Amino acid sequence: MSKKEPRKNTAPPEETLDPRDWGPIRELGHRMLDDMMDYLETVRERPAWVSMPDEVERKLKEPLPLEPQGEEAAYRDFRERVLPYPIGNIHPRFWGWVQGTGSALDMLSEMLAAGMNPNAAGFRQASTFVELQVLDWLREMLGYPEGASGILVSGGSVANMVGLAVARNSRAGFDLRRAGLHGGPGLTLYASSETHSSVQRSVELMGLGSEALRLIPAREDLTLDLQALEAAIREDRSAGLRPITVIGHAGTVNSGAVDDLEALADLCHREELWLHVDGAFGALAWLSPELRPRLRGMERADSLAFDLHKWMYLPYEVGCTLVRDAEAHRKAFALMPSYLSRMEAGVACIPPLFSDYGMELSRGFRALKVWMALKARGVRRYARLIEQNVAQAAYLTEKIRESPRLELAAPAPLNIVCFRVAFPNLPLAESNDRNRCILEEIQEQGIAVPSTTVLDGRLCIRVAITNHRTTRSDLDLLVREVERLGRSKP
Amino acid sequence: MSKKEPRKNTAPPEETLDPRDWGPIRELGHRMLDDMMDYLETVRERPAWVSMPDEVERKLKEPLPLEPQGEEAAYRDFRERVLPYPIGNIHPRFWGWVQGTGSALDMLSEMLAAGMNPNAAGFRQASTFVELQVLDWLREMLGYPEGASGILVSGGSVANMVGLAVARNSRAGFDLRRAGLHGGPGLTLYASSETHSSVQRSVELMGLGSEALRLIPAREDLTLDLQALEAAIREDRSAGLRPITVIGHAGTVNSGAVDDLEALADLCHREELWLHVDGAFGALAWLSPELRPRLRGMERADSLAFDLHKWMYLPYEVGCTLVRDAEAHRKAFALMPSYLSRMEAGVACIPPLFSDYGMELSRGFRALKVWMALKARGVRRYARLIEQNVAQAAYLTEKIRESPRLELAAPAPLNIVCFRVAFPNLPLAESNDRNRCILEEIQEQGIAVPSTTVLDGRLCIRVAITNHRTTRSDLDLLVREVERLGRSKP
Repeated sequence: MSKKEPRKNTAPPEETLDPRDWGPIRELGHRMLDDMMDYLETVRERPAWVSMPDEVERKLKEPLPLEPQGEEAAYRDFRERVLPYPIGNIHPRFWGWVQGTGSALDMLSEMLAAGMNPNAAGFRQASTFVELQVLDWLREMLGYPEGASGILVSGGSVANMVGLAVARNSRAGFDLRRAGLHGGPGLTLYASSETHSSVQRSVELMGLGSEALRLIPAREDLTLDLQALEAAIREDRSAGLRPITVIGHAGTVNSGAVDDLEALADLCHREELWLHVDGAFGALAWLSPELRPRLRGMERADSLAFDLHKWMYLPYEVGCTLVRDAEAHRKAFALMPSYLSRMEAGVACIPPLFSDYGMELSRGFRALKVWMALKARGVRRYARLIEQNVAQAAYLTEKIRESPRLELAAPAPLNIVCFRVAFPNLPLAESNDRNRCILEEIQEQGIAVPSTTVLDGRLCIRVAITNHRTTRSDLDLLVREVERLGRSKP
Repeated sequence: MSKKEPRKNTAPPEETLDPRDWGPIRELGHRMLDDMMDYLETVRERPAWVSMPDEVERKLKEPLPLEPQGEEAAYRDFRERVLPYPIGNIHPRFWGWVQGTGSALDMLSEMLAAGMNPNAAGFRQASTFVELQVLDWLREMLGYPEGASGILVSGGSVANMVGLAVARNSRAGFDLRRAGLHGGPGLTLYASSETHSSVQRSVELMGLGSEALRLIPAREDLTLDLQALEAAIREDRSAGLRPITVIGHAGTVNSGAVDDLEALADLCHREELWLHVDGAFGALAWLSPELRPRLRGMERADSLAFDLHKWMYLPYEVGCTLVRDAEAHRKAFALMPSYLSRMEAGVACIPPLFSDYGMELSRGFRALKVWMALKARGVRRYARLIEQNVAQAAYLTEKIRESPRLELAAPAPLNIVCFRVAFPNLPLAESNDRNRCILEEIQEQGIAVPSTTVLDGRLCIRVAITNHRTTRSDLDLLVREVERLGRSKP
């Protein structure tokens, strides 16, 4: 185009995603909000889970929409095809895997965050200060020392990865960021055989290889065997390998077992190893003065990974890594490309960039829901709810002990209860099948959603209570229904 | 406690985060929604950026709230201390870094997702089918073949990491997941010197070492130099190293340069290398038939990373990796711990688990905002908006060419324009300082938010237009104000 032609006049009129008339979207929004409030208020009236009919599944398969269907139609389809078929984790009788629950206030916080939609990469904006405040609160809530650093992440998997990456880089003994793993001896990591799969996934992603993760067979109480750990470290050292880190657990995924963190911290100090604690849900028990002693030593970990979308009941996604040595944390991630130069004034005039402490550059404002929740409710309310869930697990444990048909499959030291229907006259494979069928029926009939796990070859029904809506009567119902299904013919 | 005492009667009454009376939270929600709609509707009336006063920063520092402040108080503090101080990326004149914009509908979609709050890990629930549909739509939108796999992630950094992890594991030539990098020869990767910092961060995190990332000096048009690339590959091979992947760019962060992806695909095919394309924002230009030819070859990449919170204007966070070879993708991540066993019925009776394709196990329902947006608006609307941003960049380029005081600092092939105020009589360092001061003033005065970068030692003002609210008159204003500040004494 020639310089003489003024482009303004030849260009087509400009469009935007903003409506010309804000009335309809505003009205739709209020309707959505009322619908969602109704949905939350009546959750107890619905089944814990509903299998999506094949017909709905078919309707969800649509050709790529080239032309607009409109906002009303999109929302209608959401209401008809999506909203009625959740996994169920907001229901009072959902205890599958370890999932959080959410609440009305948290939903609203997410709306505020998405409307503001800051790129919470850092820079001089409110979200930076909110996130720094939240990190400082979390540090204090979990008994970590001042000066420790932290980063909000999507959840426990990434939180573990961040901790293990700092451990690896700071304990390798050579410039691993530059030279890569080939630049030094083989590095080894240690955890009990009850460790979470995300630890293995991190170890693999970081190029260490799953073989480098020494899984020490857990003791009978499903905690880490410290003697076996020490022997493994010794053996690796004499084979010319370099042990770098031990992963302790504040609540294992299978049974909620808590490793002896105090002894682990001592051992790591003695052996000059990095102690990383995976506290995905269990770390939050620290909030309760009553439960805190069970986690003694956690506050001495070099890094601590935990979720807030589990036992703080917040909506997905929000987890956190705390690192005792802030400088080691920064050294593992910080980079300064020219397009991120800090300025003396304006938007970019202030540290930190959160990318100096993790994988992500662009980041959502996940700090807001934590900030709103802590301010609105206070830490002590969360402490009480966590205590309540632990008491409910103890209550369920007692009910199972009292039942002639049920048996506990593992100790239940925190909020997870693994149990089975006893079929004393059946071979193991068959009794596993029967228990699996019972679990499937419990879900299919919409009664409740526990999940399963396998402990020592035995398939168990696993109830993990990170749910602020659960009451003891919900657990009564579960026990009653499992007993009923256990009596019925397969 | 004895088995005889029934626990029900001795236990304290149970509490929940649900209100007893839903009236107040419902009313607060409607007020929040109205406030946010007002906020979005009036965004153009506000400055592009406001520096947060020190006083507000101080107020944001609060002791850990042990007791509740209440929901109203938390929201009041949000309105007073947080909402007025965004980074500015929803403003029509925000063009810093590469940030998205969001919209009213997208905000509402996030509210729906957070209210439903499914753990979108997979399993038999609506969110699984919505996400599979979204992945299939994205695949088709970007010209990828049927049968390719994909995963929604937090953004471009993780999207690149997923692609590079699959590349690494599938091209290493040995069982890297098990044995780690020590199990084989040194692996090398290649990209132009204009590559994004997240590529280096991934390479470091994956244990390859930044040295393994060969940064080939870019050509004058800031694209990858293919001859130099071939020479580097040859050299590494003869040194006993194993080249595994080339990273091509569909829009570099500095200038929007697009590598010759067709030639790169040919080269990678010939050399048996994995082609990963970082299309963080640029990949979306594929939606436009007019712009598509500029990305020719992108559809042949083995993996493709891109964001939807940039040029699809969606709220943070949502990015995606597509992988041509679904089996290679799965092999890089899949794990099956006992607590995730698939069942024959119930919640866990259906693949996939999305953790088979990425780092995260618990996952938020980020697919919903994509699904709602594509249904409500259709692909063609996004194509037009992307074309509009590219036309606006061309318009700005023309304005700069016409200005006697301004100079282009790089070609502007897509939506990024780098320019400077020319100070022909000043030494480089001083003219850099003057340009930095001008940029800072533009931000501090709330006029607009471009960012900076350094190209060939020259500090540039960088305008990246991924903003559906921008009009040409906004760019007129920017040029006028930069010229004005360029004339004023420093």
